[in-house]
Amino acid sequence: MKIEAVDFFYLSMPEVTTAADGSQDALLVRVAAGGFVGWGECEASPLPSIAAFVCPMSHSACRPVAASVLGAKLDEPMDIAAISSRVAYDSMDLLQATHTLSGIEMAMWDLLAKTREEPVWQMLGYRTTEPKIPYASMLFGDTPQDTLERGQKARADGFSAVKFGWGPIGTGNVRSDADQFAAAREGIGGDAHLMIDVGQIFGEDVVNAAQRLPALEAASATWFEEPFSGSAYEAYAALSARGSNVGIAGGEAAHSVAMARHLMDFGKVGFVQIDCGRIGGIGPAFEVARMAQTRNVTYVNHTFTTHLALSASLQPYAGLAEHRICEFPAHPSALAEAVAANPLMRNSAGEISAPAAPGLGIEVDIEALRPYLLDAEIKVGGRVIYKTPDLG
Amino acid sequence: MKIEAVDFFYLSMPEVTTAADGSQDALLVRVAAGGFVGWGECEASPLPSIAAFVCPMSHSACRPVAASVLGAKLDEPMDIAAISSRVAYDSMDLLQATHTLSGIEMAMWDLLAKTREEPVWQMLGYRTTEPKIPYASMLFGDTPQDTLERGQKARADGFSAVKFGWGPIGTGNVRSDADQFAAAREGIGGDAHLMIDVGQIFGEDVVNAAQRLPALEAASATWFEEPFSGSAYEAYAALSARGSNVGIAGGEAAHSVAMARHLMDFGKVGFVQIDCGRIGGIGPAFEVARMAQTRNVTYVNHTFTTHLALSASLQPYAGLAEHRICEFPAHPSALAEAVAANPLMRNSAGEISAPAAPGLGIEVDIEALRPYLLDAEIKVGGRVIYKTPDLG
Repeated sequence: MKIEAVDFFYLSMPEVTTAADGSQDALLVRVAAGGFVGWGECEASPLPSIAAFVCPMSHSACRPVAASVLGAKLDEPMDIAAISSRVAYDSMDLLQATHTLSGIEMAMWDLLAKTREEPVWQMLGYRTTEPKIPYASMLFGDTPQDTLERGQKARADGFSAVKFGWGPIGTGNVRSDADQFAAAREGIGGDAHLMIDVGQIFGEDVVNAAQRLPALEAASATWFEEPFSGSAYEAYAALSARGSNVGIAGGEAAHSVAMARHLMDFGKVGFVQIDCGRIGGIGPAFEVARMAQTRNVTYVNHTFTTHLALSASLQPYAGLAEHRICEFPAHPSALAEAVAANPLMRNSAGEISAPAAPGLGIEVDIEALRPYLLDAEIKVGGRVIYKTPDLG
Repeated sequence: MKIEAVDFFYLSMPEVTTAADGSQDALLVRVAAGGFVGWGECEASPLPSIAAFVCPMSHSACRPVAASVLGAKLDEPMDIAAISSRVAYDSMDLLQATHTLSGIEMAMWDLLAKTREEPVWQMLGYRTTEPKIPYASMLFGDTPQDTLERGQKARADGFSAVKFGWGPIGTGNVRSDADQFAAAREGIGGDAHLMIDVGQIFGEDVVNAAQRLPALEAASATWFEEPFSGSAYEAYAALSARGSNVGIAGGEAAHSVAMARHLMDFGKVGFVQIDCGRIGGIGPAFEVARMAQTRNVTYVNHTFTTHLALSASLQPYAGLAEHRICEFPAHPSALAEAVAANPLMRNSAGEISAPAAPGLGIEVDIEALRPYLLDAEIKVGGRVIYKTPDLG
């Protein structure tokens, strides 16, 4: 097969706010080849990602992503890897390229696996799709009481693991953060897994971040996520060296395998969290999952958007039974909910696993997402180089 | 002052080829505040960089660059740093943001320094602008004979330092590369500085890269540039550990201070090459220059485009007398030549230095670049969010 078409669909809620809710818009990608269709999703700013696909070439090392994808051979997994290598080299000076590629790469796996009528994780070499403990990923409340109630609700909704993120943490003092951590623990109860995500708030400030460790230990947090900016490996390592029993987690910002490897090797994190919609897709994420195993680092997906992204993000570690925890978007936007006609359901034990159906196993609900489709158009030198394609 | 307007101008040669010539298009940025105007240049893919400025917000950590810049206070250098911090945090999930910011940041320095009637390097704290040895940066010829002739021409043009890059290196065998290196040395003569740039051709393959070291040593090359992909710190370190007297160089891919620091600390390079049009502008580059000094690493600019970019790239190490070498675009496109009405001239010793004039000291030649201006337009949801602005 040859890749015949790559279509980008920019979806958005009618209103996008400054909430730390990454599901307010979405960039879906549809790839067509040999009479088959595959779907993927970039966890990225839609417009620059589209521009990185269609833009005119600047020079040999700054070509649009399209140049490496359209018309390319797609018959086996090594073809996907070859396309990814070509993007890495021919678009090395186009920073946004990896985010753009990520959704395309997922869609290529989805398509190829559909032609073989097998799930993507099987094509990756896994024999089973292991059950994961989904953690309800949500934002901290404005007050400890809000947080406590959100925790209670998550338990009532059947989650035995909950992550609280962002909100006021790091913007007040150590004491007010401790109150939030304690409220989170109280809300979810003593037996549930508690994860804390502070969204890079401490920059590279190890002392400030370390001051939060006692309260995180008191709340028996499993991990302390993204205390620092994504590339602050030295700060991650310094915090890890404090020897807390709270694991240090990070990785969602990784836009290459090398960045994830460095976070493990130089940053000494205990949990590496990979977003397939940013790192370049499923292939690179799978490579990180293998690296995590040899380093005794726990692999975790990063997913805050749709169940298409969720399925894609589960594939790279679907068969790793010891890597048990998975992020699960607990309160996605209406748009994010609309994407999958067949979302991943928790089983009676409250667990989920990557679908056994062919491809990513997600049926994109065209009619349901039609209302969220934004019209976009890009013109250069009088020529239209992008126009929102027909959803079909 | 408040930043009143930020205008992006996408310039292009009529035809852009797959040559490794980064001067075939350009993205100029004009910033206006308080009746002053500053100019900068993104060394980046124009369209995605524009999109990263104007795109709709996706969520709190994925805002357009414009949100951190327009209307912001600009009275002193710390205001520039504050804007950069805001972009880093509020656009942390927008990969292209740093490339977009780079040109804006330069323009802010240009503008602010003009209001004070002093050169940017003086605002950075330097007392002098030291002469640099410009190396003619050019591509390898297709054959050793071509390369030899290009080297001879560079010497005839008065250059005592020459860098050859890209071309066939790494695509043939060790012997054919050795012939190229020897031809380069023969062409420029025994007394000139010779630098070799292989544009990431070896990926992460240390053995393959190391096989080129004997021929580079035989040609008395000063450095071996970008043997590996930008983040392959382990490979850089392994090659450095071979203890060759040919220095290992890299850094142009750095899009943050952390990446440049890691290339020095983990990658053990001897030369760190920073492009102000990619790393986020002059402030971050200045920080890298300071880091290089304390590490005994030599700082070098990376510039393959216009003299506006060249002046910007000289500022961060203008006052560092021991960091002598600077990249000088020897054969820029007609468009790149058109940008500066007053290009940097070599003195009688063949050296250049950052201008003593206010700001970046470069007068943008509006009339000369008018023919290269591309019309571009971006529309989302029926609303035009970018349209090529008036050059004036």
